[in-house]
This record gives sequence, C-alpha cells and structure tokens, in this order.
Amino acid sequence: MSNPSLLILPGDGIGPEVMAEVSKIIDWFGAKRGLKFDVSEDLVGGCAYDKHGTPLHDDTMAKAQEVDAVLLGAVGGPKYDVLDFSVKPERGLLRLRKEMDLYANLRPAQCFDALADFSSLKKDVVAGLDIMIVRELTSGVYFGEPRGIFEEGNERVGINTQRYTESEIDRVARSAFELAMKRGKKLCSMEKANVMESGILWREVVTEVGKDYPEVELSHMYADAGAMQLTRWPKQFDVIVTDNLFGDLLSDLAAMLTGSLGMLPSASLGAPMENGRPKALYEPVHGSAPDIAGQGKANPIACILSFAMALRYSFDKGDEAARVEEAVNAVLADGLRTADLLGEEGVQPVSTSEMGDAIVAKL
Amino acid sequence: MSNPSLLILPGDGIGPEVMAEVSKIIDWFGAKRGLKFDVSEDLVGGCAYDKHGTPLHDDTMAKAQEVDAVLLGAVGGPKYDVLDFSVKPERGLLRLRKEMDLYANLRPAQCFDALADFSSLKKDVVAGLDIMIVRELTSGVYFGEPRGIFEEGNERVGINTQRYTESEIDRVARSAFELAMKRGKKLCSMEKANVMESGILWREVVTEVGKDYPEVELSHMYADAGAMQLTRWPKQFDVIVTDNLFGDLLSDLAAMLTGSLGMLPSASLGAPMENGRPKALYEPVHGSAPDIAGQGKANPIACILSFAMALRYSFDKGDEAARVEEAVNAVLADGLRTADLLGEEGVQPVSTSEMGDAIVAKL
Ligand SMILES: CC(C)[C@H](C(=O)O)[C@@H](O)C(=O)O
Ligand SMILES: CC(C)[C@H](C(=O)O)[C@@H](O)C(=O)O
Repeated sequence: MSNPSLLILPGDGIGPEVMAEVSKIIDWFGAKRGLKFDVSEDLVGGCAYDKHGTPLHDDTMAKAQEVDAVLLGAVGGPKYDVLDFSVKPERGLLRLRKEMDLYANLRPAQCFDALADFSSLKKDVVAGLDIMIVRELTSGVYFGEPRGIFEEGNERVGINTQRYTESEIDRVARSAFELAMKRGKKLCSMEKANVMESGILWREVVTEVGKDYPEVELSHMYADAGAMQLTRWPKQFDVIVTDNLFGDLLSDLAAMLTGSLGMLPSASLGAPMENGRPKALYEPVHGSAPDIAGQGKANPIACILSFAMALRYSFDKGDEAARVEEAVNAVLADGLRTADLLGEEGVQPVSTSEMGDAIVAKL
Repeated sequence: MSNPSLLILPGDGIGPEVMAEVSKIIDWFGAKRGLKFDVSEDLVGGCAYDKHGTPLHDDTMAKAQEVDAVLLGAVGGPKYDVLDFSVKPERGLLRLRKEMDLYANLRPAQCFDALADFSSLKKDVVAGLDIMIVRELTSGVYFGEPRGIFEEGNERVGINTQRYTESEIDRVARSAFELAMKRGKKLCSMEKANVMESGILWREVVTEVGKDYPEVELSHMYADAGAMQLTRWPKQFDVIVTDNLFGDLLSDLAAMLTGSLGMLPSASLGAPMENGRPKALYEPVHGSAPDIAGQGKANPIACILSFAMALRYSFDKGDEAARVEEAVNAVLADGLRTADLLGEEGVQPVSTSEMGDAIVAKL
C-alpha cells in the first residue's frame, strides 16, 4: 500500500514560515513512527497569482482533488489589495473549498490553560473552554447566484444571494450531530429564522436531522443572540452549527475569546472519497499576518495543530493527534511563548523555528 | 404651536412594564419643565396580533407616520413561535422600520462606570467604553427580493437576497460621518468585501462619502475581523458603520461587552419630515424577556435612555437628554440595582417601578 498523500500549500505572508515547522513534525512521524506521507508542495493565493496570474492554478486544483489531505498556511497581503475581485488571493482558497466540496468546517475554540490570561475575557469565563463550531463552507451567501454589481436606473446596486438547499443543510447538520455524539451531546444551531426564510428552512432541516440523534440535546438560537451568548458565557455551548456567513463571524468571535488566535486550527471536510477518507483541507484560523511575515515571529502552533486535526480526521490517528496536542501543551507549560503571546513578566519570546523544534523535542 | 407628538408602542413581555417608567419621566418633563408631549398609545407585536390578527394594524402604521417620534418597548414571546412568518411579532417592528424608512440605527455601546464589573470582559478592556454603531436598517438581506422557500428539483431551497444600492449606502454613511464629526472623528466601516460584491460596493461608496468629511479618519475592516477586534480591544473604535445583518450581530456583541444589556437604548432615524425632525423610532436593545415579564423585575433604564435619545435626536433637547442620563448615573452610583444587575455583595434588587421612581427623584 502506498503512503497517504499530503499536498502542502504554504501560501502567503507567514504561511511558509509556520508550514516549515509542520514539516518538521511530519518528518518526525516518518522517521520515528514509520508514519510516512507522500508530500508535494504547491502555490495558492498571492504567490500563485504572482507566478500564474491566478490565485489557484488548475493543476494545483487537480492535485488537491487527488491527495488524501491538503494543508494550507494562509493567503493574502496588502500587495494584492488592488487586484480584481476574481483573482484576489482569497478566491484561491474559496475555489478549493467549493470544488473539493468541503462543506463542514470544524473550528474548535479551546482555551489553553497556560494561556487563559491572554483572553480579554475574565479568566473564569474562558478557563477550560472547549467548544466546536461547525460552519457550512460551500454554500450560502459566499457562493449564491445572482451576485455582482449591476446598473439599475442611474445607480449601481450590489447583490449577493443567500441560498441553502435542504440537502446542503442536512449534510452539515449530520456532521455536527456526529461530532456532538463524540463530545458533550449538546448541539446549538444558529440562524436568523426570525427575519430570513433561509433560516426557517435551516431550522426545520436541522430539527428533522435531530430525530436521528435522539441522544443529542438540540437547541436553536438567533445568530445575534448567539454572538451575545458566546460573549457572555461561552461555556454553555458544546457544538454549534451554523451557516457560512454567520459561521465566519461567530467562529472568529469564538476564536478571539480564547485569547490565542495563533493557536487555533481548523479542518474543512467533504464527502468520503473512494478510500473512505473524507476530502479534507486543514488550515490555521489566523491569517497571513503580512506585518510580521519573514521575521521569525509567527506562532506555528495553529498550523501544527491543524496537522494534528489531519491525523485525527483524515488518517484515523487519534493517538498520534493527541501526542502532538500534548507536546504543544507541554511546551506552553514550560513557559515557551512566541511574540504573539507576550505579556507575562520576564518572558522572552522564542522564534517560530525554536517553537517548532521544542514541540518536536516533546514528541 | 402644538406640542410635539409621541406614539408609544409598549409591545409584549416586559415592554409595558418598562414603558410605564418612561411615562413617569415624560410626565415629569411636562409638569416641571413645561415640556409637554401629545402622547398616544397603541399595539405592536404579539398583542396586536391577538387583537387584530396582524402584528401591526394599518391604523397604527399610519399614526406612526404622522407623529414626531415613536417609542417602542419590545415584541415577541414563546406564545407566538407557532405563528406563520408573515404575522410573527417581529414583522410589526420590521414593517415600522421599512415603511418609516428608518435607515440609520444608532446603537451606543457604553459601559457605565458603576457596572463595569458586570461584563464578562476584563475591567480594563471595557471601563470607559463608549462606541456608537450605526447599522443600516431598511435594506440588505432583511428586505431583499427574491426571498422565500421554493421547490427546486425534488427538494426545497431557502433564499434571501442581500442587496444595497449606492444611495442606500450613501445616506447611512453620511449619518455615520456626521456622528463621527460630533464624537471622536474616527469611523470604521465593516463588510465582507473579500467575498461579497455588495461589500465591495459598500466600501467604495463609504470611501467616496468620506471625501466630504476629510477630518474623519476612515478605516475599513472585514466583519469577521470586526467581531474579533470588538472582543479583543473595543476601545479602538469610535463610530462603526455597517449593514443591516452585520449590524444586527455586531451591535448585539458590542452591547454584551458592556455587561449591561438592560441599560442600552437605540434610535432609528430616517429622513427629515416637513417640520425638520427626522422620522424616528426609539427602542431598548433588549428583547421582551418573557421569562420575567409581569414580575416587576425588568430594568427600565434602556427604555428610559431610549427616551433620552428621543429628546436629543428628535427634539433637539440635548441638555434635557443629559439630565436624564445623569439621573440614571446617579441612581447607579447610589447602588440601586434591578434584578439583572445583581452579583455585588449585600445588594438587594429594586423593582422596575422603584428604579423608575428613583430616576424621577434624581431629575
Ligand atoms: C479569507 C476569507 C475568504 C475567509 C472567509 O471569509 O471564509 C476567512 O475569513 C475564513 O474564515 O476562513
Ligand atoms: C427582533 C429582530 C427582528 C431584530 C432584528 O433582527 O433586527 C432585533 O434582533 C434587533 O436587532 O432589533
């Protein structure tokens, strides 16, 4: 049997730096655990535009469809702000999500004990926080048609379309219920059914799917109330399921609650391939951070934990994933901090690669 | 000259209770300051549905169009959850906003010194917080067509349309810039121009309007980053302008930062009427809180401060508005707390009407 295949797309900004640390982890598993991957690397985002005039070359897209999992760093940068919408770095990422049909975006928001003080929230509000947001990722207002800027009378009008079919809601709801079954058996679905018909359909379908998961306690919340409750007392939640746009805001909000954005991974999963593995892309929640790119200041942990998610969700290596997560906890407990995590008295920052090396050493 | 006219719509749940306290304030201004209003009262929301089979009777709508300002309590309750979308309590509120064309929703998020400890955020993050969110209120995905649940193939699809014209963006941007001129001269506009064309148009038009306000420092932020930044360090903002749906989430998030939702008022303003006053509706940010309705537990301050906003924005009585706001601060400094504000040692809650009376006494 051939090795499982990984496509690495470091992307822009700090992407390549943090991905270099992930490569160390991958190498460690190959050398010490006989867990080898066939790794290839390619371009996405601004760097792909620089080379090919498109943020995602068709060849890269084709490769992404074939591999067992894609690891992505980050895309974007001020240099590309002037580009037309259709070739902006983000379009590369959105094309991957859409064409690989990665409908379930898993965004854990976990507060690391050693870092609870970094949150802008009170320690008792966030200490021990562990929620999972499941965001629909291939539909909704991100992709609905018609869309564009049109002439109307003597002015322009900007139009986007929020659009969800029953089957699109059904499949992401099932992903969320499955996760809830493996966790605290509580699922909260968020929409604006009080003002949007797409939200009414969302609520109906989620309720219907819930009948197949009688053990899971299902609740519904308007997304604005959801934003409030996440801020007020986030520990009331276990798994949250919501649409693409609400998920974008709410998962970023939840990430910020933990106080350590540089720590948070994500997984985007699609339907099972022939080999039984889901189509999958893993990426840190943070962006390309152009302001600190190339300075060795970036925190590689979010990207490393994204690889841990790959071990768990693509390769069924839960123990190995836990080993990576424990190594991360251990270096944090030792007091190692990258520059984004400063503030404690007397702590000197370590560089991106020092952090990566320390994690490898803990493995 | 006749007295300015007020239409009071107490609505459902705690609406009538908190509005009763506002009436005391109105009476005080009439008796002690010769500032008399012609007050009429009517139904909106669930109670209107109970009586008329519609959450807003046409006669009430017509009255709202004629008065100088509308004061609204809150709408909704579990009893009405089973109603069809088209007659749900919220539709009454949305019809008022739309037909009065109240395009600029002003949502101050202010942290009251005496209450900074109630926030789930650290005290230094929120103490002294004073931001103003200007939310577009009559367009976007709340009202765009096509909308509904349709059959497509052999399944249903839920559709809503995000839609903004240049003039809709222009007018709300102007409201926001005007407010910024009277405040800290900083305006941040939020959208998702990286994924939505309506956001691109939004950013363009706001930038264009900004040329008329060279003194105002204008910035742009993606709404997901906005949610993060509001959570991380809200004091970086002065005025924020955003669309209807993002504004719904972000203003609720900002409200929750202050830790005292029962304290926050809002104003919804439209174009000037013949008498020069803007069309206007004032309402607390909190909902109808059916769980505590009728028990004298509700906090009337948000509704009272909404009346203060009416004094300021409809009747050009900034001094009188400040007088009400100072009275509120004074009772809080005295340690008076309604049940939503408990937690300090040894504090006994006062009732809704005790709180109202205390504020009147301070006037
Ligand atoms: C980069 C951008 C297109 C993207 C999104 O809006 O989905 C990002 O914010 C995210 O959440 O992954
Ligand atoms: C009640 C509801 C329709 C309303 C909205 O979504 O606008 C509310 O959340 C608000 O913010 O005023």
